[in-house]
Amino acid sequence: MTRLDLEDTNFSMRIPDYVSRVERYMDAALPAQNMAPDRLHSAMRYAAFSGGKRIRPLLVYATGECLDIDPDRLDMPATAIEFIHAFSLVHDDLPAMDDDDLRRGRPTVHRQYDEATAILAADALQPLAFEVIATADQLTDSESRQLIALIAHACGSLGMTGGQAIDLESEGRALSVGELATMHGLKTGALISASVMSACCLAPNLQGSSFDAMERFSRKIGLAFQIRDDILDVEGETDVIGKPSGSDEALNKATWPALFGMDKSKRRCRELYESASDSLDAFGEAADSLRFLATLIVNRVQ
Amino acid sequence: MTRLDLEDTNFSMRIPDYVSRVERYMDAALPAQNMAPDRLHSAMRYAAFSGGKRIRPLLVYATGECLDIDPDRLDMPATAIEFIHAFSLVHDDLPAMDDDDLRRGRPTVHRQYDEATAILAADALQPLAFEVIATADQLTDSESRQLIALIAHACGSLGMTGGQAIDLESEGRALSVGELATMHGLKTGALISASVMSACCLAPNLQGSSFDAMERFSRKIGLAFQIRDDILDVEGETDVIGKPSGSDEALNKATWPALFGMDKSKRRCRELYESASDSLDAFGEAADSLRFLATLIVNRVQ
Repeated sequence: MTRLDLEDTNFSMRIPDYVSRVERYMDAALPAQNMAPDRLHSAMRYAAFSGGKRIRPLLVYATGECLDIDPDRLDMPATAIEFIHAFSLVHDDLPAMDDDDLRRGRPTVHRQYDEATAILAADALQPLAFEVIATADQLTDSESRQLIALIAHACGSLGMTGGQAIDLESEGRALSVGELATMHGLKTGALISASVMSACCLAPNLQGSSFDAMERFSRKIGLAFQIRDDILDVEGETDVIGKPSGSDEALNKATWPALFGMDKSKRRCRELYESASDSLDAFGEAADSLRFLATLIVNRVQ
Repeated sequence: MTRLDLEDTNFSMRIPDYVSRVERYMDAALPAQNMAPDRLHSAMRYAAFSGGKRIRPLLVYATGECLDIDPDRLDMPATAIEFIHAFSLVHDDLPAMDDDDLRRGRPTVHRQYDEATAILAADALQPLAFEVIATADQLTDSESRQLIALIAHACGSLGMTGGQAIDLESEGRALSVGELATMHGLKTGALISASVMSACCLAPNLQGSSFDAMERFSRKIGLAFQIRDDILDVEGETDVIGKPSGSDEALNKATWPALFGMDKSKRRCRELYESASDSLDAFGEAADSLRFLATLIVNRVQ
């Protein structure tokens, strides 16, 4: 682990640059705050710049490092995926959904503005994601099309939105392990996986077995991410995770700790990390940035 | 007008075929009703198959007739645009928005299911629209990309969703004529226009002046469509228009009749029709199907 720790330090030093990079592109893609309809544009910006960790864009760039892709070509997929993520959080927080007042320590969009504006701001972030990829100079027509197919599928009824629907349907009833894994795989896993796979779309020479390895890595790390989320919801402190801890429990939601207890959940998270990391063996040191992000995902405290 | 009437009859005879054609593709693109999450998929189908007139797909096919485009290449743009339209209606009807219980004589999606399912069903219809275009065999990479850029822009904050935001913001206050025209141009006009222009994307030899003429036609007919909507909201009967007449007035919404009175609104609608029709002069008889649809739009009773 000594070598990896050293490499980690290098990627961790690049994180602020990658974050400011994707935020610059998000800023450029969003209509100006004072452009009509200004309340809507203000809410879109509030949703997009809410102190997020930008894990998904970082996964795009880290995969790009592994596959030696020019970061200029990753900016629009990273931007688009973060817009999709922002859209999903706004709708998840609505009164008809999780009814959250706080997100990352700030009022949620419908609390800061109003419910109609929150619904519409998210509705407008979604097509903006596809528009930035469809109009990106750095992508060929074929790449643009592949990326849109990938991301659209990941956020639809057989991806993220479907996962949220299963999550809501499951309130108050027990899920089987298989159902819980499916729900997690869709709700969080689909977009985490699309972040890794979007960079793979831009690596035309990626061998079938390497492509499969990336897919395995992305799925495992997506599931680990959601289990870690569940753990933090129980253990975390409100001022660190930015929303009331225990809010899933209050909604009687299906979570990993509720089904297996905390110890087993932590062990499972660790196993998924190990197994995700193993998937990257064939890439050698080139994948160290991805390994570092995987470590970050399973150890994060918010 | 004799010749035109004859041609009209021909297009009106093709309408049922075009409608069943686009509905076949919508059906094929939607996940099966019994596929998990089945409540979500059921709601998506309920929203998509709600007795709509399919005006937007018909505009796609009619423009295709004018520009001699194989209808096989129009199926996916037509399907996508109708999914976007369906998504927008579901969210417009929500309690936080127009709070409508009925749409085309049936319970709205949030009344038939529940609010969370309605939000998510629409959220999933939107990416499905982009996915069908990104994965359409009949389109080149370049066409697919152009279509996505066009439609994404038309449904975003500078298009349809922006128009709905202005509409909500305007409740209870007077809009200027310019503001009302802008709002209408975005809320309804953007997607009507995109329907015509999506077929234009597939006609690579379309001259600049013809392209501009199509754009003028599409904008004028989009505005006429919304004015006709406003007129019907005042004059229509609940059992014909499928929602309580006068519901815009009840919300104190900015409408054309409220600002100008009924006579002037009808005259404006007629003028827009004439002017839209004139835009098509250069296309001669090839545009008769589009002229017929324009007539339909300004004379419809629901």
